[in-house]
Amino acid sequence: MGCSISKGSKKERVVILGSGWAGYGFARTLDPKKYERIMISPRSYFVFTPLLAGTAVGTLEFRATLESVRRLGLDHFHQGWADEVDFARKTIRVEANTSDELGSSTTAKALKAAQDPSSKVDGAQPGKGVMFDVPYDKLVIAVGAYSQTFGIEGVKEHASFLRDVGDARKIRMKVLQNFERAALPTTSAADRKKLLHFAIVGGGPTGIEFAAELHDLVKDDLTRTYPDLIKHVGITVYDVAPKVLPMFDKTLATYAMETFKREGIAVKTEHHLQRIRPDEDCQGCLKLKIQEYGDEEVGAGIVVWSTGLMQNPLVSKLVSKEFETPELGSLRDKGKGKGNVMIQKDARTGGIVTDSHLRVQVIPAESKTNDSKDVPESSSLPDVFTIGDCAVIPGSGLPATAQVASQQATYLAKQLSKGALNDDNNKAAKPFKFRNWGTMTYLGSWTAIHQSSADELKGWAAWVLWRTAYLTKSMSIRNKIMVPVYWATSWLFGRDISRF
Amino acid sequence: MGCSISKGSKKERVVILGSGWAGYGFARTLDPKKYERIMISPRSYFVFTPLLAGTAVGTLEFRATLESVRRLGLDHFHQGWADEVDFARKTIRVEANTSDELGSSTTAKALKAAQDPSSKVDGAQPGKGVMFDVPYDKLVIAVGAYSQTFGIEGVKEHASFLRDVGDARKIRMKVLQNFERAALPTTSAADRKKLLHFAIVGGGPTGIEFAAELHDLVKDDLTRTYPDLIKHVGITVYDVAPKVLPMFDKTLATYAMETFKREGIAVKTEHHLQRIRPDEDCQGCLKLKIQEYGDEEVGAGIVVWSTGLMQNPLVSKLVSKEFETPELGSLRDKGKGKGNVMIQKDARTGGIVTDSHLRVQVIPAESKTNDSKDVPESSSLPDVFTIGDCAVIPGSGLPATAQVASQQATYLAKQLSKGALNDDNNKAAKPFKFRNWGTMTYLGSWTAIHQSSADELKGWAAWVLWRTAYLTKSMSIRNKIMVPVYWATSWLFGRDISRF
Repeated sequence: MGCSISKGSKKERVVILGSGWAGYGFARTLDPKKYERIMISPRSYFVFTPLLAGTAVGTLEFRATLESVRRLGLDHFHQGWADEVDFARKTIRVEANTSDELGSSTTAKALKAAQDPSSKVDGAQPGKGVMFDVPYDKLVIAVGAYSQTFGIEGVKEHASFLRDVGDARKIRMKVLQNFERAALPTTSAADRKKLLHFAIVGGGPTGIEFAAELHDLVKDDLTRTYPDLIKHVGITVYDVAPKVLPMFDKTLATYAMETFKREGIAVKTEHHLQRIRPDEDCQGCLKLKIQEYGDEEVGAGIVVWSTGLMQNPLVSKLVSKEFETPELGSLRDKGKGKGNVMIQKDARTGGIVTDSHLRVQVIPAESKTNDSKDVPESSSLPDVFTIGDCAVIPGSGLPATAQVASQQATYLAKQLSKGALNDDNNKAAKPFKFRNWGTMTYLGSWTAIHQSSADELKGWAAWVLWRTAYLTKSMSIRNKIMVPVYWATSWLFGRDISRF
Repeated sequence: MGCSISKGSKKERVVILGSGWAGYGFARTLDPKKYERIMISPRSYFVFTPLLAGTAVGTLEFRATLESVRRLGLDHFHQGWADEVDFARKTIRVEANTSDELGSSTTAKALKAAQDPSSKVDGAQPGKGVMFDVPYDKLVIAVGAYSQTFGIEGVKEHASFLRDVGDARKIRMKVLQNFERAALPTTSAADRKKLLHFAIVGGGPTGIEFAAELHDLVKDDLTRTYPDLIKHVGITVYDVAPKVLPMFDKTLATYAMETFKREGIAVKTEHHLQRIRPDEDCQGCLKLKIQEYGDEEVGAGIVVWSTGLMQNPLVSKLVSKEFETPELGSLRDKGKGKGNVMIQKDARTGGIVTDSHLRVQVIPAESKTNDSKDVPESSSLPDVFTIGDCAVIPGSGLPATAQVASQQATYLAKQLSKGALNDDNNKAAKPFKFRNWGTMTYLGSWTAIHQSSADELKGWAAWVLWRTAYLTKSMSIRNKIMVPVYWATSWLFGRDISRF
């Protein structure tokens, strides 16, 4: 089990919940000489999410987007879900992920569980996973968020997500399967059109990049393989907002729309999806009810859902409960009551409120509501931190992006490695400050857009930046070598189109 | 649908059933200027099977073992199962594989269907796939064989196979999952030993190579990741025969056994597996009943089944039915009866008997039995050929290997491209002759054995030959470049151990 004693005193145990941009980034930056690092996550890998769209169409190998957490040399890694945290006893209740299924957060089961926090966390089958306790000295909650389906009928069951490598694999299989289905001599022209209509819901960078990558696959590779089918292919991006890519300024967003128009990708803004259901008359087809079209349903072979986030069930559970913590004497006094506290919840997102040092904030339980907008008075819960999509610094206006999660992870790991943030009133530590590195989105056909506070880039130059930028962040040497190799191979020989 | 008319006369339609070593090899060699090439296979790719064991442990990428049949530029490819052949009307009944499942021949469902030829071919769900007819001028049956489980209880349900890329993926997931299960703090030492016992049934090249690759994965990579678990790992090869690797001479087989002994891989010859069942007390564990051990069952985390072949359900169906063919007037006369014929069945394997030109042989239906040993008199069925695992040339003693299938495919494609074998009595064509290129097996730790009629090689030199030989057969340029890249990457950075 390894020796964690140095100079007669044990190193503090830092337990990290999650292996995404926040959790993985934190674990790799935290000084292992100063802390024992323990990670709990249902997945034993980190996913380099910006490349997922590329793997879904075969430009890249799935493996190139993964980094095994086992390679971080952690003191312990437990493959499982954090089910509950006892802040008073400083203990985490873990349910082992011993099923053969992966710990994806986008299965229908997991999404259902997320909407009903009283059920088992993360959709694990009751009684399946062994439970065990993990004690901590410091806790970093970095569990991320789930996909929000807004209760729209059929989304959980029939839409495809693009958040984990398993999702990318499923999309890839479906795209190629639909081409094979459409190629059958018994398939009618009308059904071909349905099977080869790829609908993307959500016009953020993920949705736009997937549409672009899919367009490249069709244009560069499938045109040669299925020359007779290409006339039936359609790609449509639906969004409820009046414009897509809201984080880009008007020039760039307009450039993106013009590029898409030229490539034949339809963008339908102010369109509201109301229902997805299977098309009984066409195997593999779905029918989309869109508010603006009335009763006439749109046929599609795949619906990729890339909009909206909701809180992880663990976060929902943690912000809903009262608890007592012996170390919060001062806070108890303020509360003038039995001394129970609650974690402060962000009113808009349901996330965990932190101070500018990413310390979890608690309020007296008597406040009745812990929504941040109503309760100004809060205090830091000692030794508990939150980073990434589930953390909210009030007033910061930070979006739930990989960039924010990654910077928060580095900030917190460096502060803790320096010995800062070790008590409730550490004024010495500098607060977290987000530095915008800019936003990039791939648009297909070797063009991209890039925007930062300093400059704007579009077209081929932005594409070069897009490709090179992806090689520098959070990647192992292995993938830094392999990703360009895969890109070169796809460029030379075409994308792999075997369905397996 | 493309024009296939040249100089006023249509090209002959050659329909190929199967995309394995035989079918894929035939399709890529047949002259497309002389014939219209149409392939029917449930899978849209060819699997380079000798590298499957390497992909199952992450030395190689799955994709490196695949070649898309779509890249052959065939006139048509139909993703589906040949369900029936009408030899009189020269038509094949095809069931489209439109399900999201792959057309693997090793699912429990498919294996069940194979044992009951009256059920749907290949385990497709009844009523799921659309049926359609494909006419042929010439037919090449290259559907291969299924895994034979000898009716041993639990093999179909609980053993892992290693015949398709989906199988390799499942094994890989299970190996890594079992390590994660064993790593949980709640797992007892006894259960760790069970979870990390990898049992391989069958001591042929596939079983031996998988054991060797698994040993490399454990020694080179998992030792670093799970240092505390390595002491629990066990690899055992079971075989009913008194020696493993029967195709190698004594020196080489002994060398292989000594290498395995040094590496800690146990080889248990003359051991008879009688049952596999799940271990209720240890999630993910199996219990193996072995005849020689009496009632004491052996615990294992994985059982890899790599022994025995049985006929594909289509072959079983074809050799069981009587049919009339208008072109067989001469044969009918010999039969002196109603004129029906049957395909001649090999008595030992149940395969289709061919002559030395790989033409399917038929006998008068009155013969009552079509087993080859009882009926000497047979005739060629015009325009119907069989190659690969389902073809038997009586007296040739050829094994069901990739090498034989591959050479038969090349032979037949070249003969047909030359215009030979075009009628019942083409004496001009040379008969098929197998040329033994030698047999190679990897033994782990950079050693291999190689044997051919000319020489024997063992150790590192054989390993070099093993690696280079695999790059020259049936591979696209893409994979000829990528396979060494993957090997180099695994050597430099270790195998990828992310479970996804």
